[in-house]
Amino acid sequence: MIDKNIPKSVVARLPLYLHYLKTLNHGSSATISSATIAKAVGLGEVQVRKDLAMVSGGGKPKVGYYRKELVADVMEVLDCKRVKKAVIVGAGRLGTALLSYEGFGEYNLDIVAAFDVDESKIGGECHGKKIMALSELNSYCKENEVGIGIITVRERDAQTVCDMLIDSGVTAVWSFAPVKLEVPNGIYLKEENLAGNLAVLASNI
Amino acid sequence: MIDKNIPKSVVARLPLYLHYLKTLNHGSSATISSATIAKAVGLGEVQVRKDLAMVSGGGKPKVGYYRKELVADVMEVLDCKRVKKAVIVGAGRLGTALLSYEGFGEYNLDIVAAFDVDESKIGGECHGKKIMALSELNSYCKENEVGIGIITVRERDAQTVCDMLIDSGVTAVWSFAPVKLEVPNGIYLKEENLAGNLAVLASNI
Repeated sequence: MIDKNIPKSVVARLPLYLHYLKTLNHGSSATISSATIAKAVGLGEVQVRKDLAMVSGGGKPKVGYYRKELVADVMEVLDCKRVKKAVIVGAGRLGTALLSYEGFGEYNLDIVAAFDVDESKIGGECHGKKIMALSELNSYCKENEVGIGIITVRERDAQTVCDMLIDSGVTAVWSFAPVKLEVPNGIYLKEENLAGNLAVLASNI
Repeated sequence: MIDKNIPKSVVARLPLYLHYLKTLNHGSSATISSATIAKAVGLGEVQVRKDLAMVSGGGKPKVGYYRKELVADVMEVLDCKRVKKAVIVGAGRLGTALLSYEGFGEYNLDIVAAFDVDESKIGGECHGKKIMALSELNSYCKENEVGIGIITVRERDAQTVCDMLIDSGVTAVWSFAPVKLEVPNGIYLKEENLAGNLAVLASNI
């Protein structure tokens, strides 16, 4: 659970800082300035300095931050020190791409299994993760204390799957179906609209 | 090219409106109110009314917008009346997932080919699109007037690929590599950090 006093816009930038800090190798200096981080991630110095001051008390004038301490503080705010389990519903191309994507490990996010209704996929594996029948979703999530559900099914099935995930105890839903989902209070929802994002980018050219 | 006077934050919401409007079938009413759209996409009425007033002059009190006219106006602002061509570099799982994703067509975005250095992939097809050698990227993009480049390669190769795309005449770059890319002035860049997005969502639970 993150500190609710840190604005969402600041939390949204933390993965950028964390990822950069983690790419530095052991031979790098033990300390790092907010100016160096700002340059590396392509944001303004003032913004980065303010953001980091909100998440870590370890910054010293002319010294900067101790990298290890800063990484720990950012991870603390992002609450990614403990492993959180996720499942994917929809073992199509996007679902299996996410299932095999290794970047989630950096944040201690573990996509543990995928679910589908396609008999030809059920029982299979992808990147060492099992593809199971959708009918097993509820019991699996409850037994394994899965907190996150990822939706990569067709638009017309997305709300049904979303409801099933919530019934299974999931409290955060990440959807790639380009449709507005309804979730009850207390459930966190993030909707990605990949085609829309590309359309907005492309509108510039 | 979009009207530069419309704020980016407004343009970013247009795909949401457009997608909803397009899901309505032909039997639906010819007119639609901003309140109905607001409810469907889960945004505030005031915001939707203001957004739509900026992109379309067709709204009438108590009548709303003529759907077809509103769709045309939103498409005009998003500049998606003409087809724009994109290529993908990196024909791995995510690249091929995007290659086969049908949602881009709604915005007249056409992903025409993918490029890779993996000999086992080159010459193959995915969803009817050719996978070609990276060495052919430059000539292909120039011959086919490709304006958009999508990067789904590993982090360490992303900047090199980005430079190659820009050399090939691409002016909009959409990157899924979790690393800050450098682009010259006049090039539009949108970086997606999927793992970071999920981490921010998961920090709530």
